[in-house]
Amino acid sequence: MKSRQPTPPPPLPDLATLQDVARLAGVSASTVSRILNGTASVTPDKRAAVEAAIDTLNFKPNLSARSLRSGSTRTIGILTQDLESPYFTRGITGVEDGLRGSGYAPIIVPGHWNPVEEAERMRLLIARRVDAIAILGGSLSDAEVTGFARHQPIAVTDRQLVAPNVHAFEFDQAEGGRMATQHLIALGHQRIAHIAGPKSHADAVRRMEGFLRAHADAGIAVDPQLVVEGDFMEPGGVLAMNRLLDATEPFSAVFCANDQTLWGARLALLRRGLRVPEDLSLVGFDDLPQSAYMTPPITTVWQPIFEMGRAVASALLTALGVTPNGPATHPPLSMVIRETTRRR
Amino acid sequence: MKSRQPTPPPPLPDLATLQDVARLAGVSASTVSRILNGTASVTPDKRAAVEAAIDTLNFKPNLSARSLRSGSTRTIGILTQDLESPYFTRGITGVEDGLRGSGYAPIIVPGHWNPVEEAERMRLLIARRVDAIAILGGSLSDAEVTGFARHQPIAVTDRQLVAPNVHAFEFDQAEGGRMATQHLIALGHQRIAHIAGPKSHADAVRRMEGFLRAHADAGIAVDPQLVVEGDFMEPGGVLAMNRLLDATEPFSAVFCANDQTLWGARLALLRRGLRVPEDLSLVGFDDLPQSAYMTPPITTVWQPIFEMGRAVASALLTALGVTPNGPATHPPLSMVIRETTRRR
Repeated sequence: MKSRQPTPPPPLPDLATLQDVARLAGVSASTVSRILNGTASVTPDKRAAVEAAIDTLNFKPNLSARSLRSGSTRTIGILTQDLESPYFTRGITGVEDGLRGSGYAPIIVPGHWNPVEEAERMRLLIARRVDAIAILGGSLSDAEVTGFARHQPIAVTDRQLVAPNVHAFEFDQAEGGRMATQHLIALGHQRIAHIAGPKSHADAVRRMEGFLRAHADAGIAVDPQLVVEGDFMEPGGVLAMNRLLDATEPFSAVFCANDQTLWGARLALLRRGLRVPEDLSLVGFDDLPQSAYMTPPITTVWQPIFEMGRAVASALLTALGVTPNGPATHPPLSMVIRETTRRR
Repeated sequence: MKSRQPTPPPPLPDLATLQDVARLAGVSASTVSRILNGTASVTPDKRAAVEAAIDTLNFKPNLSARSLRSGSTRTIGILTQDLESPYFTRGITGVEDGLRGSGYAPIIVPGHWNPVEEAERMRLLIARRVDAIAILGGSLSDAEVTGFARHQPIAVTDRQLVAPNVHAFEFDQAEGGRMATQHLIALGHQRIAHIAGPKSHADAVRRMEGFLRAHADAGIAVDPQLVVEGDFMEPGGVLAMNRLLDATEPFSAVFCANDQTLWGARLALLRRGLRVPEDLSLVGFDDLPQSAYMTPPITTVWQPIFEMGRAVASALLTALGVTPNGPATHPPLSMVIRETTRRR
């Protein structure tokens, strides 16, 4: 928060354009213009409507002339997925932080990993003439993203994509899965279970690749019975851990595909009277804000999604010709070793 | 999810209006109209721009004629506060659920409990001609809310307000604080500490009123040394619990002003080797989704904010002349007794 630069563009109050006033008042832009110039003979009704709209929108004729000429709405659209996922809200907060002081306001729409809904929300943003769009995760095809980028710059997270007007950011999920598993192997664990995410999520598939790679690197065979699928949510973690415990295969550690899965798995262990990390070591993925406050605090893979959000904002502001306040890059994934793992 | 009604208005693809197409293509609405009617002699450049805009926005001339006539944008603005607060994201999810199938899409803007920022974001929504606005919490004055409601229906949570075009919803926070404290008194606790929220939050003040009222009802004196202030966040809970433990006043239970405060307090106890509920009973407030997965799961006051979000959506849809799918009311606060409290 210390590196904020001076002389940002004018802040939000000049968001309203003359056209906004006209639309709100239900008159033409030229009527508004004539009232402002004092050249109009208009009905008292219309004049009152225009004055109410100017009042509501805090319209400043001089300031907004610039927006009007440039066609800018001074808004950045953010297409996100589930607002109840702390991963996405942390990313949005990063974008907001990167936009602070830039004069651009964020408008957020959720897509819920539903490609039809995501495309509809993208059209909604484009129809409202946002100046740029950040797409956080989701399931739009690369071709769709490329098509939407014809109209304004787009930054996209959690995918690789090289296309005109598109800025792509992603973490190396396979490397993250490898690090988490290697951490357990280094502590002497040989029989390591994995509660995977849903196969339909590319991230889940890549994290499992990393799980397999760490085993291969260490010359340890993976027992397929120790790999079960969760749903990236707490209830799936409970069910998957119960399945592992009900099977007869022994294991001393579990790599959970994300922190929410781990929270559920942890509760299942409490119910069976098993202690963490005394009886079982657990590693998560994401490092959600709450994970530092679990008891005990969770060992996990840090996804610097807030920092990625700031880099997304920097890329979009740069594309719009505005000097960004934040860095253009973000740190890679890294291990956060807390208290849910111990030497076997 | 079972009670969805048939025959909702047409869904999102008809969000784009002829004016949207004109703006995106950089031509006048009449030019678009003439191209659509086949009556235009326009340059190939303009025609290509209009066709690209129609393609991008998935514009359907017949469907959108209705929106154009009515001036509807088929969008509902949601002014929220901190997107990283699970309380607010749960409320937004409720509004989204209530809008599902209605043909209205949500547009979300965060205000961060900053009255200047909140007013700017309200103007942004009004300038973009949302059909109605939901205000979740925040710090706008009643007069500001009433003023903004001149332009479209507004539903507001966490306050009482009777004004034209305004629909207000709130929980009885004092009653919630009383219930939480009474639960501890009924378990035999007499020396009960309170980690309050910030005095600037009306909710925090009311919850403390309930804490005092429960003591008065039971004829138990409150020890002012056992009342400390947190910040509604986890770090404040850690600090406040450490202050209580460092003082010499004995206590056997703590009413924490919200769940995040309790999570922090719980970690502070773990660090001191104190067990919950064996050594200390804890009650929270909110019943955030994660609280059911803490170890042990948390006893708390359920705020049915998801259900309130659905009632907000119902109120706004009704105001817009659309039959809502969800209920118009929400349940009151209630105790969720889990495993962080026990008989003294």
